[in-house]
Amino acid sequence: MKTTGTDRTRTDTRQRVLEAAGEVFAERGFRAATVREICQRAKANLAAVNYHFGDKERLYAAVLQDTFHCAEKYPLDRGLDPEATAEERLQAFIRSHLYSLLDAGRPAWHGKLMAREMAEPTRALDAVVDQMIRPEAELLMAIVRDLIGHDAAPQRVWQCTASIIGQCLFYHHARPVIMRLNLEQTYTPEAIEPLVDHVTQFSLAGLRQFTPARQGEARCTSWP
Amino acid sequence: MKTTGTDRTRTDTRQRVLEAAGEVFAERGFRAATVREICQRAKANLAAVNYHFGDKERLYAAVLQDTFHCAEKYPLDRGLDPEATAEERLQAFIRSHLYSLLDAGRPAWHGKLMAREMAEPTRALDAVVDQMIRPEAELLMAIVRDLIGHDAAPQRVWQCTASIIGQCLFYHHARPVIMRLNLEQTYTPEAIEPLVDHVTQFSLAGLRQFTPARQGEARCTSWP
Repeated sequence: MKTTGTDRTRTDTRQRVLEAAGEVFAERGFRAATVREICQRAKANLAAVNYHFGDKERLYAAVLQDTFHCAEKYPLDRGLDPEATAEERLQAFIRSHLYSLLDAGRPAWHGKLMAREMAEPTRALDAVVDQMIRPEAELLMAIVRDLIGHDAAPQRVWQCTASIIGQCLFYHHARPVIMRLNLEQTYTPEAIEPLVDHVTQFSLAGLRQFTPARQGEARCTSWP
Repeated sequence: MKTTGTDRTRTDTRQRVLEAAGEVFAERGFRAATVREICQRAKANLAAVNYHFGDKERLYAAVLQDTFHCAEKYPLDRGLDPEATAEERLQAFIRSHLYSLLDAGRPAWHGKLMAREMAEPTRALDAVVDQMIRPEAELLMAIVRDLIGHDAAPQRVWQCTASIIGQCLFYHHARPVIMRLNLEQTYTPEAIEPLVDHVTQFSLAGLRQFTPARQGEARCTSWP
């Protein structure tokens, strides 16, 4: 398909409004932000905002989706063999999430907007969960099921999924505390790979605890 | 020590200012919040704020400390035998943190202020980390060392500590997503104990992976 000059201008304007809206919403929150300020910052007019997004609520929804939709650069199957084992798929999942979450190229407003949304969820979160988070959670749950057995109780599968994703998210959302607590922890690409290895190893061992073979044995409450 | 009426009034005023400041800072952020609005909401005068806290920066520091200092109700050694094993101390640590983080009685502004501070740290975070977070992190690191061996590399001890605390924090900071993803997950006190058990079991198994006895064996990258 040929891209015309007008198409390019439209895409540019749309992207500029999205970025400006992200910054303004992250600074002021959904309610206090005004479309006027967003237009000024994006050097776009109100008609352009209406054309691309409709109203303020739909603009916010698009911005929030953009925040959670940053994994394209780090697809979940990067370098994965089609015959990959569940362990390899787990490692690829963890790698994709850690690199995506800790990507130095991410705009600062992503983190701020996500933090705001977690502290004071808006109606837009429902769509983000359904369209973006649920499919990823289901992918991880499928890997967990492959590892601990398809007869595992749904609540156990969920808890294991939470244990894995919680380890990844920690490095993102507690970053200012981590940087102050552990001066050795950096966020360069070279520092991320050891975290991928650690979270994978820790999680595989944690999951093993719940495999059917283990369930007959004494639980790991007393130390060997 | 006898508490006089004046002492009580002072404590009341201090507490009222602290609560009002917490709400205002959580809503507007440190920079945009004004001491004037805080005084109005607390029904206190400027002299009282100055008397108890000094300036806006010190008031904010006190509020932030209050946010992180909520574990008094759930002491780390609750019900712990002085002879408790490292496994029991780990479970007590996880229990104390999960109950404290998920306490339904916590003011809503705690979560908002913490999220703001993680997204845009202020100078007050340094003191909170040094005085409140570091001692708890060191306590957990000591438990981890008791479990994986005192010869473990410091970076490994740190990563294991992060894996444990990350699992606990997830239920707090991703709560709006969790409530939408997993309709079975509630936050009643009865729902927290199974999480304590899960995080403890998952973590003990994860830590076991790094005990000296295991280090000679093949790592848990291939599934049994």
